[in-house]
Amino acid sequence: MNESTPGVPRATEGTRLDPWFDSYAARAHQMRASEIRALFAVASRPEVVSLAGGMPYIGGLPLGDLGEMMSRIVSERGEVALQYGSGQGDPALREHITHVMALEGISAHPDDVVVTTGSQQALDLVTNIFIDPGDVIVAEAPSYVGALGVFRAREAEVVHVPMDTDGLIPSALEETLTSLRDAGRRVKFLYTVPNYHNPAGVTLSLERRPQVVEICARFGVLILEDNPYGLLGFDREPLPALRSLSPEGVVYLGSFSKTFAPGYRVGWAVAPHAVREKLVLASEAAILSPSNISQMAISTYLDHFDWQGQIKAFREQYRERRDAMISSLQEFIPEATWNVPDGGFYVWVKLPEGLDAKAMLPRAVTARVAYVAGTAFFTDGSGADYMRLSYCYPTPERIREGVRRLAGVVEAELETVRIFGTAGGTRSEIVDFPSPDLA
Amino acid sequence: MNESTPGVPRATEGTRLDPWFDSYAARAHQMRASEIRALFAVASRPEVVSLAGGMPYIGGLPLGDLGEMMSRIVSERGEVALQYGSGQGDPALREHITHVMALEGISAHPDDVVVTTGSQQALDLVTNIFIDPGDVIVAEAPSYVGALGVFRAREAEVVHVPMDTDGLIPSALEETLTSLRDAGRRVKFLYTVPNYHNPAGVTLSLERRPQVVEICARFGVLILEDNPYGLLGFDREPLPALRSLSPEGVVYLGSFSKTFAPGYRVGWAVAPHAVREKLVLASEAAILSPSNISQMAISTYLDHFDWQGQIKAFREQYRERRDAMISSLQEFIPEATWNVPDGGFYVWVKLPEGLDAKAMLPRAVTARVAYVAGTAFFTDGSGADYMRLSYCYPTPERIREGVRRLAGVVEAELETVRIFGTAGGTRSEIVDFPSPDLA
Repeated sequence: MNESTPGVPRATEGTRLDPWFDSYAARAHQMRASEIRALFAVASRPEVVSLAGGMPYIGGLPLGDLGEMMSRIVSERGEVALQYGSGQGDPALREHITHVMALEGISAHPDDVVVTTGSQQALDLVTNIFIDPGDVIVAEAPSYVGALGVFRAREAEVVHVPMDTDGLIPSALEETLTSLRDAGRRVKFLYTVPNYHNPAGVTLSLERRPQVVEICARFGVLILEDNPYGLLGFDREPLPALRSLSPEGVVYLGSFSKTFAPGYRVGWAVAPHAVREKLVLASEAAILSPSNISQMAISTYLDHFDWQGQIKAFREQYRERRDAMISSLQEFIPEATWNVPDGGFYVWVKLPEGLDAKAMLPRAVTARVAYVAGTAFFTDGSGADYMRLSYCYPTPERIREGVRRLAGVVEAELETVRIFGTAGGTRSEIVDFPSPDLA
Repeated sequence: MNESTPGVPRATEGTRLDPWFDSYAARAHQMRASEIRALFAVASRPEVVSLAGGMPYIGGLPLGDLGEMMSRIVSERGEVALQYGSGQGDPALREHITHVMALEGISAHPDDVVVTTGSQQALDLVTNIFIDPGDVIVAEAPSYVGALGVFRAREAEVVHVPMDTDGLIPSALEETLTSLRDAGRRVKFLYTVPNYHNPAGVTLSLERRPQVVEICARFGVLILEDNPYGLLGFDREPLPALRSLSPEGVVYLGSFSKTFAPGYRVGWAVAPHAVREKLVLASEAAILSPSNISQMAISTYLDHFDWQGQIKAFREQYRERRDAMISSLQEFIPEATWNVPDGGFYVWVKLPEGLDAKAMLPRAVTARVAYVAGTAFFTDGSGADYMRLSYCYPTPERIREGVRRLAGVVEAELETVRIFGTAGGTRSEIVDFPSPDLA
């Protein structure tokens, strides 16, 4: 059955293995699994300390009581819970969501809310309705890998704007928007994670918030405010959302994945009226309706459990893990530099001169520790000297052990650099597709 | 604050009401809610008999036992159930799905399966990876409204191929593909619902199945086999799926929404290996991962409940409702014609000469009965003389009452036609977006 001619190279073999190769849409040819995926399969083994994932710590949830809650929902209201629902989402949950957002100064009507299958779906829907191929999205440098994956799938061009310890730099945003306008480029929106940034760990300061809103309004650029971590600050009350400063200029994305549990896959978008209508239509085309049973679980949890107390408990747990991460870095890898996040899940670590986080990753996994290389969070190939370390999931003891293992790898790399002048790093333009491992 | 000049018409007011009107992607301008939506809001009132929706009858499910099952899943396995999962879906559920599909002659490996948020999401993902704007999709005339909505959202052109009581007509398919090829058009796939078609109620005969597969293979056209109703036949064993005849030529979509419960939003796609890889990447961009708790609920249900017995019970219930629908049509609207479906949810009714189902719909809703006008199931404006009646959700008594009310409306319309020669029908090219009401 082998029809190849001996001696003739089978140059097209790669495409011939896929009989539908020629049928794909242009965008699908951009979709490819990076080599990082294979690594993560290894990294998910129990003997590896994963500082890579964004999985929340849900061990502290009252699972027995939640089980009882699920039982009641199905046995008492199963004919609704197990049926199709509304495309926009359950009105009772949308009402609850307005109360959750009020904690960040947002005043919204339940009609403004669209419930989605995690806030990732909301991100996809907004990109769907705004982005034509070649449009520009302005985003922080670095940016959430899952957003960059969506933007790439919709064939947008991402232009990064630098941050400092106070978050996105307004003057840099203004410069970027000016030069894009002068170049005749169409900027559709600013994508920003203002609170406890993924991966950078920083928060947009109170002073800068109205400045960012004003600049975007002046340039006619919509703001896409992605806020999964806003209630997870360690030391302070939530800052006012950008949405609270400009209801008509901001589409706000929220999620229960980090404040409650990701397994239900419930997030939401709040949008200006006309945008909201299109989001609902796009969502119905994508999934018909979000899960009723999941939505009723969230509503019932918000109704009958001390959800704000649970968030407080999460914050204490994450603070303890953050402390374990920072003290381990100080002890084991003092050659590196990092920020000290005051909320959220991530520390953004700059490696010592000459080291390449992506090139080093296979060696780290061999040493039974995993992280995400900084290149995943840029579309322009930069970030190789950074890595994202997550402290959300492992225990403080595991975090300490993970950083200790990482230190051994860094030390060996530095030794190589001292001898050969390079650790063999490569810059890559491949943006990884979003993966649950990277959430 | 009103800056309009008196006497100057505000021609752009419609767009000025939406500050982001100029920012939308080209495809988003195609997204609009049809007038049908407003009607359905009325039609969902309890006094209206809805023969419009595709909501399954789930009252027969053992809700108490299912509640107990949910309780166990969360209390005993909550740390997995409430966490993020794999983008491709839970391996245990994918294994179960291969056994479900074996009932229709499909031999697949769990690696071939991608779990989705309802099969609607699978439909969206397949369209995403294959369709560039302007590509052609060949589909039955009529076709599922939710599929047409996805195809429109992705800017495909749909070319309809006629059916008869044995389903899609192979010679017509061949003619259509020939003339499209001769016109230099790019046909990406055939979209087909081979079993108990939505809305036509017919089934592709055993004889025609290999013919359709052979024709598509000859033209290099992928088959997208959408099969939510295959196990819901009243009088016979399931027919072999097209996928069973051509694993490399068919992407198969399945769903638990009609054989178990839609509230969990669990469907799946089975695809050739390379296509499956792209589906996983596209799904991760869209939602990161399907809901773990929903997937574990389906797996546990398949493991511990008599799911095949439940499907048998559903079939008996739906048969009884089909009988109520057909006998009511015979008694109350003998002027119309219809098929007698031997499975699934729908009767496809041709109205008497001169009547327009879309124009008649507001009057029907006023008479407290609802249906879906045939125009929703075509992209070319035809179908006005048809309506889809669903017998899945209402009781036999309600079905009888609904058809009785409908007969009054038809009678009044016929009277108008007799007097004025027309009932005031209009042809429409607006395809409604999919809505849970129309599932």
